[in-house]
Parts: sequence; structure tokens; C-alpha cells
Amino acid sequence: MRASQLYAPTLREVPAEAEVVSHQLMLRAGLIRKATGGIYTYLPLAWRVLKKIKQIVREEMDAKGGQELAMPIMQPAEMWQETGRWDVYGEEMFRLKDRHDRNFCLGPTHEEMITTLVRMDVRSYRQLPLLLYQIQNKYRDEIRPRFGLMRGREFIMKDLYSFDRDEAGLDISYRKMYDAYTNVFSRCGLKFRAVEADSGAIGGSGSHEFMVIAESGEAAIAYCAACEYAANVEKAELKAITVPAETPLPLTVKDTPGTKSIKEVSSYLGVSPEKTIKTLAFQTEKELVLALVRGDHEVNEIKLLNQLGCLHLDIAPEQAIVSQLHTVPGFIGPVGATGVKIVADHTVMQMVNGVCGANKPDQHYIQVNPDRDFQPDIIADIRLIQEGDPCPHCGAAVKTARGIEAGQVFKLFTKYSKSLEATFLDENGKEQLMLMGCYGIGVSRTMAAAIEQNHDDDGIIWPAAIAPFHAVIVPISGKDSEQMDLAERLYGELNQAGIETVIDDRSERPGVKFKDADLIGYPLKITVSPKTVSEGLLEVKIRRSGETVFLQLNAGVIAKVKELLVSL
Amino acid sequence: MRASQLYAPTLREVPAEAEVVSHQLMLRAGLIRKATGGIYTYLPLAWRVLKKIKQIVREEMDAKGGQELAMPIMQPAEMWQETGRWDVYGEEMFRLKDRHDRNFCLGPTHEEMITTLVRMDVRSYRQLPLLLYQIQNKYRDEIRPRFGLMRGREFIMKDLYSFDRDEAGLDISYRKMYDAYTNVFSRCGLKFRAVEADSGAIGGSGSHEFMVIAESGEAAIAYCAACEYAANVEKAELKAITVPAETPLPLTVKDTPGTKSIKEVSSYLGVSPEKTIKTLAFQTEKELVLALVRGDHEVNEIKLLNQLGCLHLDIAPEQAIVSQLHTVPGFIGPVGATGVKIVADHTVMQMVNGVCGANKPDQHYIQVNPDRDFQPDIIADIRLIQEGDPCPHCGAAVKTARGIEAGQVFKLFTKYSKSLEATFLDENGKEQLMLMGCYGIGVSRTMAAAIEQNHDDDGIIWPAAIAPFHAVIVPISGKDSEQMDLAERLYGELNQAGIETVIDDRSERPGVKFKDADLIGYPLKITVSPKTVSEGLLEVKIRRSGETVFLQLNAGVIAKVKELLVSL
Repeated sequence: MRASQLYAPTLREVPAEAEVVSHQLMLRAGLIRKATGGIYTYLPLAWRVLKKIKQIVREEMDAKGGQELAMPIMQPAEMWQETGRWDVYGEEMFRLKDRHDRNFCLGPTHEEMITTLVRMDVRSYRQLPLLLYQIQNKYRDEIRPRFGLMRGREFIMKDLYSFDRDEAGLDISYRKMYDAYTNVFSRCGLKFRAVEADSGAIGGSGSHEFMVIAESGEAAIAYCAACEYAANVEKAELKAITVPAETPLPLTVKDTPGTKSIKEVSSYLGVSPEKTIKTLAFQTEKELVLALVRGDHEVNEIKLLNQLGCLHLDIAPEQAIVSQLHTVPGFIGPVGATGVKIVADHTVMQMVNGVCGANKPDQHYIQVNPDRDFQPDIIADIRLIQEGDPCPHCGAAVKTARGIEAGQVFKLFTKYSKSLEATFLDENGKEQLMLMGCYGIGVSRTMAAAIEQNHDDDGIIWPAAIAPFHAVIVPISGKDSEQMDLAERLYGELNQAGIETVIDDRSERPGVKFKDADLIGYPLKITVSPKTVSEGLLEVKIRRSGETVFLQLNAGVIAKVKELLVSL
Repeated sequence: MRASQLYAPTLREVPAEAEVVSHQLMLRAGLIRKATGGIYTYLPLAWRVLKKIKQIVREEMDAKGGQELAMPIMQPAEMWQETGRWDVYGEEMFRLKDRHDRNFCLGPTHEEMITTLVRMDVRSYRQLPLLLYQIQNKYRDEIRPRFGLMRGREFIMKDLYSFDRDEAGLDISYRKMYDAYTNVFSRCGLKFRAVEADSGAIGGSGSHEFMVIAESGEAAIAYCAACEYAANVEKAELKAITVPAETPLPLTVKDTPGTKSIKEVSSYLGVSPEKTIKTLAFQTEKELVLALVRGDHEVNEIKLLNQLGCLHLDIAPEQAIVSQLHTVPGFIGPVGATGVKIVADHTVMQMVNGVCGANKPDQHYIQVNPDRDFQPDIIADIRLIQEGDPCPHCGAAVKTARGIEAGQVFKLFTKYSKSLEATFLDENGKEQLMLMGCYGIGVSRTMAAAIEQNHDDDGIIWPAAIAPFHAVIVPISGKDSEQMDLAERLYGELNQAGIETVIDDRSERPGVKFKDADLIGYPLKITVSPKTVSEGLLEVKIRRSGETVFLQLNAGVIAKVKELLVSL
């Protein structure tokens, strides 16, 4: 492709609207343009990247026996009403009516559609297992679409659905997809981790997220350097931390004026935060709850929500704390608390002679001994894992990192086959529910994540496998016919050899061309200079390492460029 | 692919809902399933066909310098309001609101979007020409979606938009696309014709339709066997037909009781229909109109509408004929008619001593001579071309056929660049409007059209280039290990050689497998029988011709199969 013809309008300025680096660079490098909030046009460079990611996804899905199809984006309401999700989805679902006033949505996902489809045609165990997938636009009316392609309202997903005869089959399908996802992200050239995940609102249990590691990631993950363990911090399991033996002393009230935070009270009393009990009041749709964790720990709201079996969880308003608990924020504690459910983390129950709020302004209890001084209604793992916590598998200290969720695999079991009556006849002619799984990859998000992970101040650093082009040839002088002839010859030969190459034939200064090359992020930048003409040396700069290689301009030069590319 | 795993649920019965053969066969062969009226899932076989058509389209667009991108399906209303089409589109446009109550539509086409996009980034003549395209779902809320994929509400289109500096550039882009379309439909293996078309409601002028020839086609086309001329009958131009000289005789009234039709009056009077003037009364939004064509001709309402410059045209209600023209249907005529606009076809004006209604019940004029006896307000080409009419280019007799519109190319000129202010600076630094063209291919419709054109009573007959698979291997007995070993070996070798092959390894009777093979329409059916094992002869049946070829089962057999495939 000739740069003079390539529709890749680059921008010099950082667009004010773009908060994250992938969004900034995609706008600046001429990859995307905004149509309206959360809705973008993919320009030719971005579309090339997306086609490469899609092709990798396709090959890996097909290798596991996946079959590609395409379901409608516009879905009739009826099937969503059958599963009850028409109401559950709320404002996140784009809805519309046709001219006959019938209700439709723009598919945020396709469990209803695929289950309805498969139940029509699959009758016998002989037709199972089935792995069916599609790659298409999905729709979600985010309250605050932001971060460019990271959280859009129209975005590209690969979604695969598995149908099996039994749980053993589901396990096999799930493992296949887990392996396929590992291959997809590896082949895309990304650093990632598969982490144990909470299965969230979509239902079912048993799930992994595939996290592309990036500092800007919205999700926090914990992983073990000693073993394979990795999990979303929302999910990471924790055992109780035991403490050195100590003799329980009697419960005592202390004046602790103005010490509302753990930091303040531990400093005032001269004890370490590990000796304090952090008490947080939450309001659910059912009741008021006190959650207890050790002072140096944080409450994991997802775990707490799961323990309580509730739908919503919010920090309790001050008014509720005052009127129902007869206490004040900053001095809440479990001792003597009534009319409230108490949930304590395992580690809290191990504490001896701790400190907690006394439910009176400016007072704390010291020498608090759980079980003796208060009895929680629930004792469970409700805290967030943190750097240095013991790995739940091997006990070594875990590390934490941030990641971008680019894929997720889910066991759905019979959640949808039950509500939509997707059954088959087994070997004995008995009707059985199909066991399902669903497996998503955010294709457009993966492109954004690749940039979040791979960039520098000058622009994007594409992994070679998903780069829009592999190389750019920059002739220093477009008016020098020797340079141009050489550049044109190389351009032809490189493309011929399958190295997707752009020739920058624009009438711009070399500096502008170099800047654009770095911004767009071609893995290799090939400069044709006076030196190339006079000394027969081709300058090839590797975008990622910044290293410059000089290649002899002879019959083997194309093969050498290919070697460089493969080595990236 | 193994038939036992392929998700292609075939049906024995012809589904009652399907009116046309492509719809019936796509349901029966397991290519599509209906989600709701006009909205379908493409199952794996159909998706393979569509991917092949898309790939051919891509290659041909790219060969002409087209660049692929992807614009949003969900489009904000504002740009449609700028061009005024938000109101014009009416109920055919699917509309929705987001959670902030802002208006969107599901794109029926993308002129507004692409023009808005290009005006953002293109400033100089040096950035032109541009050919930008995408392949994606389009949406149209048809009153009566029907005929399966022929007239759906969600369908797949390729739409390309050209941007040029001037009309000469537009001519070049238009010609490139005309050639690309010719290549696309040729490579898809379809019989088609490019015909001159009316440019319709989308606006602009200068347009060709690409018609896939099929008896079931909705459109009628006229073409010349002697020269290249072909046109949609709506558009086909006609000159006046001259008649032998004759002496004008005086206008005379005749009683013609009960002769309301041309057939009745010409038979009653003993004259041929060519001697009669057919007078039809139409009502437009502005006025009442009499349209005159020769008795053996038909009025072309599109031409009439264009001549009148009106928006709507309907046959006038009987009441209007009686109250305003003071006559009765069946006996209307132009002689003495007042308070009505008269439009006469050129050929009517050539007639001598003709016959027309006398505006009184059961009476006609004979010896009518146009111009002497009545003066039309407009004389123009307002009739439909018919078989045998002279070709407007060479004069030879034209033929007519029916076709399915699968593609259309359009010159838009400045229609959208003007309303959306898409300008550039020319060589002299002067601001100019971009010249645009738009070019569509109905991708899913092309698949349906291929089936309408290529099928028999047993099923689909795919052109090899777009067949979901090239061949199917049917082992007569799945229990015969020699047959199965041989079949498996061939299956591996054929796929290895790039011949996309299905092995029918299902535990079904051979008859069922043969029927499915014909229904799905694999170009080649390879039977592995006892004869193959004992005599070393492979039976290959060609789906299109029905011909059976026996190939020696030796090292060259794969090459022979490939030759057969290429010859199709």
C-alpha cells in the first residue's frame, strides 16, 4: 500500500476527549474516529488489525471443532422474556420496536438466541457436542461509555456456545476453549494471564478471565510466582491468617478522641493495624450488615454479596447508622451491636486482644476477643487478596498486577437449557437438558488492550502478528530517482514475499514520515537513504527494541528482513 | 469436515412459509433458520458461502484501490437530519433511543456517515480520489418481509463510496466499480447482466443495476442480442415507431356497446390493437392526468412519474373520472377532454386514423388523428419496452428476461457533499465540493439469487466458486472397513490438496446421504462403493450436469478431481 493513498489520517495533537493511551493513539494514528459516545468507525488500519485478530480467533476456534455461523443482531423480545432477562437487563439493553410495534433488542449477548436455535434442530445425543460461534457487533448502552474501544456501546465480540450431553462433556468443551483462548492471546503476541473469575450476573459457575497485563487495566489480579495460580482479586480465595498465641485480656473501653480511621486509632493507641478490627456498615436490599475484616485488610464486596445472597450492596448511609445502630461512623463495632447481621472474615476470628469501635463517639474497645465478645452471624472469606498474601494453592507470597479483561470462559450448566427447554434424547431415549458453556473474546477490546500493553511516547508498538502492516519503507528523498527506484523495487519484493509493506511516497519531510511510522507502529522501519544507494546498506529499525540493523543490499536481503520479522 | 459433526440440519418437508425456491432450499438444506420475519440466522453452510462471496468482493474492491473499513451500524440521528433523510425515510427506517433519550437509527445505508467521516479528515485534492467500503449488516423495516433472504429486514451488504475531485474522476471511479462488479458476479459463477437503471429515490443520476438472471426475479429487463444494450424495463428508452403513410379521414363517432377493453373494441371494430389509443387516467398529488399509449403498449409509470415531476402516481379512482372528466372508465379518450393534463407517448403521435374512447358510455371515436383532434400537454417516452421492440442502440429486436437485482452502482455527484459540506481545496487553493458515487452489492441476496438461478428438483447446484464445500465423499457402507479406510484416506488427501471435502460418516442409509448431498448441492459427489474397493474405480458425480465419471484410483486421482472441479 502506498502511504499517499492509504486512508490513515494522523493527528499531531493529543485529542482532549481521550483519557487513556490506547484511545489517544488510535485517534492520533488514524485508526478510529468517533461517531458518537462509545460508537466508532474503524478506519482501514484498525480494520486490518481487527481482521488479523479475527482470523487468529477463527483458526483457534475451528481447531477445536468450533463451527462459525452468524445470528441476528436484532433479536425479538420473546426469547428474552422466556428467560426473564428482558426485565433484568434494564437500561443497559438497547431496545426498539418495529413498524408493527413488536419489541426487539440489539443483542448484548446471544444465549437466548443460540439456545432457541439449537433446541429447534437438535434432538439426539448423537448430534452433541456442538461448539458454535460467531464474530459480530454487540451492543450495550453503558451509562458512561469511555476509554475509547475499552468500554464502547457498539463493539466486536467473538462468542462461542458449547452444548454437551453431560458435565464430563462440558468439562472437555470448557478445557478446549481454555486452551484455544491461551493460543489466541499467545498468537496475538500479548502478555496475559488466565485467572479464576467470579461468574457474575450472567449466571452459572466455573469461569476464567483472560487478562491482558497492562498498568492501565481496570481489573486487579493476584498471581503466584511460585505456582500457576492466578485469580481476579474479586475471586481470589483466602484462608485465615493465624497469629501468635496470646492470653485473652478483659474487654475494656478506651477514649480515643477523633480517631475515625484505622490509621488514626492504631497510631493513637500505639498498636499496629493488624491488631484492629475494621467494621464497615453496608445496606442491602434486605437488611443492614456489618462486615468485619482485619484493619490492614479490605472488604471484597463481591465475596460479601455472594455470602449474603443479595442483589445489591452499598455503603450504609450515615442516617441508617445513626438511627438503626445508634452509633456514628468511625466508631462502629460488633460488640453489643443488635438488629444488624454481622459477617466476619476468617482472619478476624483468629485475632486476640484486638481493637474495635465501641459504638459511641470517640471511644474504642481494646482487648476485644471475637467469639467471646461478639458472635458473627456468618464467618467466611470476605476480604480482598493483596500483595504478599499467601497463595491459596502453594502458600508462597502472591503478587498483584493490573489487567484488561479481553476474554472470559464460563460454564453455564443448564441455566439456559432449563428456562428455554433445550433437551435431547440420550442413549436410553430419555429426555435430558443440554449442558452449556459460553466463551467470549472482546475483539475490538483486544486491539485496544494490545496498545495499552505495547506503546511508548512515540506511538504504538504492534506485536508483529496483529500489526496492520509489517514494515514501512521511508525513502529520505522522494525526488532522488535512485532512492525511489530502490525503494519501489524493495516495496514490490517485500510484498511479493508476504511481508505486508507500506511505501511512504508522500511529499513530506523525512521527519514527518519517521514520526508517522513510529506513531502507527510498523514493526520494521526501512530507510532508503543516500547511504543505501552509495554503500549498498539498508537501514532497518526495529520499533520495539529501537535497535537499528544494517543489511547488505543483495539477493538475500528479503530473506533477512523476513528473519527479523519472525524474530519479533 | 465430518458430516456427523457438521451443523447442517436438513429437513425432508418443504416448509409451508417459504414461497420461493431459494428460501425453501436454504431452510431444507440447513443453511438458514428464521428468528422472526425477515431476520435469519446463517448456519455454518450458509456462512461458508457468504464468506466466499465476501472474499471475492474484497479482492475485487481492493484490486481497484478500495480500502475496507467498518462504520457503525447504530447511527446518530443528527447527520440524517442534516440531509433531511431522517424524515424522508419514514417507517422503513428502524429507529431507537439510547438511555439519554437521544435518537439513533440502524443504518439502511451509509452516505451520511461516510460523508461526515471524510469531511473531518480530507482537506486537500492530494487526498483524493478515495474509494472506501465496508461489508456489514444493513437494516430496513420492510412492510412485508418475504422470499427469505431476497427481501429481509436485516441483510448483508457491501457498500463502497467514492470521493473525487471532479466529474472526470467520478467517471473513472464509476467505471472501476462497474468493472469490479462485472468481475465479482463472473467469479461467483453467475449469469448476470448490467442494465441501465433508474436512479430512484437515493438520488443523483447515472446508474447501472447488476441483475442475476432468474425466472423468479422481481425485476424485468430488456436486452439486445445484437449489441451490448441492456436496461431495466423501468428505464429502457424507446423512440417513436413510425407507421405506413395513410390519408387522414374525418373524426367519426361509433357505437361500441360493452367494449371496455382494447381487446373488445378492436375485435368489435375489426381493427388491430396497434390502431387503438389506450387512455389511462392517473391521479398525482397535484392533478389528474391522462396517459396515452398505443393499444398494444403499456404505460411505464416510472417514466410517467419522472415526466410529471411528481412524487406519487396512482390509477385515478372511478369517482374522479366520473365527476371531473364527466366520462366513464373504459370509454375515456383525449378528444374533447378538458381540465386534465394529457401526456402522450411518442408513438401515439405517429398514429393515423386511430381509435379512442369518446368519453360517453358505449361510444368510441374512429379516424382519430393526434394533433388534429387533440393536443397533448406533454409528448414523451412513457411506455414500457417489450419483447420485439427495437433496441435503442442498434435497432435489432430486444429480448426480455427476469432478474434479481444483486448490485447497483450510482453516481451521486454532489448530492451529499453539498448538504453535508464535504469540501476540499483544489490545486488553486479554492474550496470545491467532492464528487461522490455509491456502489452496493447485496451479499446475502447474491447467495439467494445464486440458488434461484442454480437448482433443480433435488436441491441446490452451487457454482464451485461459492459452494460451501467442493465435494462430499459418500461411503456406501460405514461398516465396511476397507471402504471406510479408503474414504478416510481420500478425505485427508483431498482436503490437503485444497479441495474442501466433507466425508459423510453418519450412520444413515446411502439413500439418505445421496439425497442430502444433492440437497446441499456439493459440486462433486464421490461415492466409495464395493466397486471402488474391488476394481479401483472411483465414482464421481457432477452435480450440475448429472454426469458420472469413473476415475482410476491411483496416485493421480486427486489431481483428476481437481481438474473436474476447475472445469465446472
